[in-house]
Amino acid sequence: MEKRITGRTGMFCLIGTPVGHSGSPAMYNYSFAQTGLDYAYLAYDVPLEKTEEAVNALKVLGCKGFNVTMPCKTRVAELVDELSDAAKLIGACNTVVVKDGKLYGNNTDGMGFVRNLKENGVDVKGKKITVMGAGGAATAIQVQCALDGAKKLSIFNRKDEFYANGEKTVKKIQQMVPDCEVSIHPLEETDALYAAIKDSDILVNATKVGMKPLDDQSLVEDVSVFHPDLVVADAVYNPKETKFVQSAKAAGCKVAVGGTGMLMWQGAAAFNLFTGKDMPTKEVYELFFK
Amino acid sequence: MEKRITGRTGMFCLIGTPVGHSGSPAMYNYSFAQTGLDYAYLAYDVPLEKTEEAVNALKVLGCKGFNVTMPCKTRVAELVDELSDAAKLIGACNTVVVKDGKLYGNNTDGMGFVRNLKENGVDVKGKKITVMGAGGAATAIQVQCALDGAKKLSIFNRKDEFYANGEKTVKKIQQMVPDCEVSIHPLEETDALYAAIKDSDILVNATKVGMKPLDDQSLVEDVSVFHPDLVVADAVYNPKETKFVQSAKAAGCKVAVGGTGMLMWQGAAAFNLFTGKDMPTKEVYELFFK
Repeated sequence: MEKRITGRTGMFCLIGTPVGHSGSPAMYNYSFAQTGLDYAYLAYDVPLEKTEEAVNALKVLGCKGFNVTMPCKTRVAELVDELSDAAKLIGACNTVVVKDGKLYGNNTDGMGFVRNLKENGVDVKGKKITVMGAGGAATAIQVQCALDGAKKLSIFNRKDEFYANGEKTVKKIQQMVPDCEVSIHPLEETDALYAAIKDSDILVNATKVGMKPLDDQSLVEDVSVFHPDLVVADAVYNPKETKFVQSAKAAGCKVAVGGTGMLMWQGAAAFNLFTGKDMPTKEVYELFFK
Repeated sequence: MEKRITGRTGMFCLIGTPVGHSGSPAMYNYSFAQTGLDYAYLAYDVPLEKTEEAVNALKVLGCKGFNVTMPCKTRVAELVDELSDAAKLIGACNTVVVKDGKLYGNNTDGMGFVRNLKENGVDVKGKKITVMGAGGAATAIQVQCALDGAKKLSIFNRKDEFYANGEKTVKKIQQMVPDCEVSIHPLEETDALYAAIKDSDILVNATKVGMKPLDDQSLVEDVSVFHPDLVVADAVYNPKETKFVQSAKAAGCKVAVGGTGMLMWQGAAAFNLFTGKDMPTKEVYELFFK
């Protein structure tokens, strides 16, 4: 490091809290160095109520761009000068580019999901997709799939505090992407869920079920619904292979992927927005995600 | 670098303009790494009128401390919560420590000068010192020498816009350090200057004369005033050995030092204020100042 940072090195960063565990500084700093870019990436612990102050502070210091994690994503979407279509529909930003003092808000979570499927040979365009979940990650996936041409989107979520959020997403997608047939259903209606899965090309878990310490659980208990052509994807990356993904593989699904790829590709999409260059994803995957 | 910066890495920095050429990021980042401290040091280009905004921004982002260079040093001294005696007398800060949201302003320029002399076997305590110059570096040297027990301080400066500044310094030192006999004289009065030099233990050039592109000049043209016991020091470090230092050496002065040591030791003093630890000055000198 001592040789790479000079008086001219530009600053990128992550804001949110907690950020101490984040792998982003390692991933971006490695990628800047590999790509020959004179930038450094730090993380600043920012609680929700300090979001506006922090964003202004980054502008004052000439920060080139920043990532946003919980709990600041929604607040940042209200603070930027311009929002990408995805960020507007999701109502949250995870990537902000600063240019000539203006803030351009994006959301690359859904882009990471779509790109990861593409890397696995699957295009969401024209597909029927069932997504379980209505929180932040789920919304990002639903919105991006709709924007990228999914034919049908069936959202399932428990009748909890996020259900209304899912209903809002349905309305927003209906307005902005009328070609996508979108609906939401209670996750408790197992028959409806299984019927949707049987009719789907792609099935996504975007809930926390399967994540440690819920890693012995899967929302799909009847594995007979996993037909061989079904593409199964999990947003959970901890563990790398959830029970959901394992049981889909065991049931013969040809493509069944965990959330690690989505995580890396959302970072790669942010890197591209930040720098205009491609992240060296092969090396990044080997070093930080394997 | 890619491995050293994590989500927990604390931020230090330099503010001012221009900062692109600064060697501080290299020096501090190397020293953090060598000392096993999880900090990174960046530089932010901050013009005078943005000083207050920038200082507030650094507080918001949890910056642990920062150095200040031109043109922000005087403004920062007005913005901090507490000033060290030296910073108060100098009226300028080059080092600010942030602790529990409060800003503690210091000035290590004079400390660097005194420490460098000490490394060369010279203590300013009880000494008669002549200092040429009344700008920022000169004031820092004069104040620190007074605080550190100099017996007599003779300031010489051209009758330019800085002369009034020198008069102010004289008054401040008279008030705060009454034991130090301090006076200011026009540099144009060569006889008075030479008389002061003959009566002095230490002679300092803290003007820009001798610095590139003025490197063929020295304020002491009659080298017969360089008596062998005279300690000669230059604040100029570009070139490393000025005409002033060269001619003092040629005239037989046993100690005649350029400004590089002062520069390194002011950084080392700031490092100590920032971290409570000693900078690995031996390695830093070899790598960045030799």
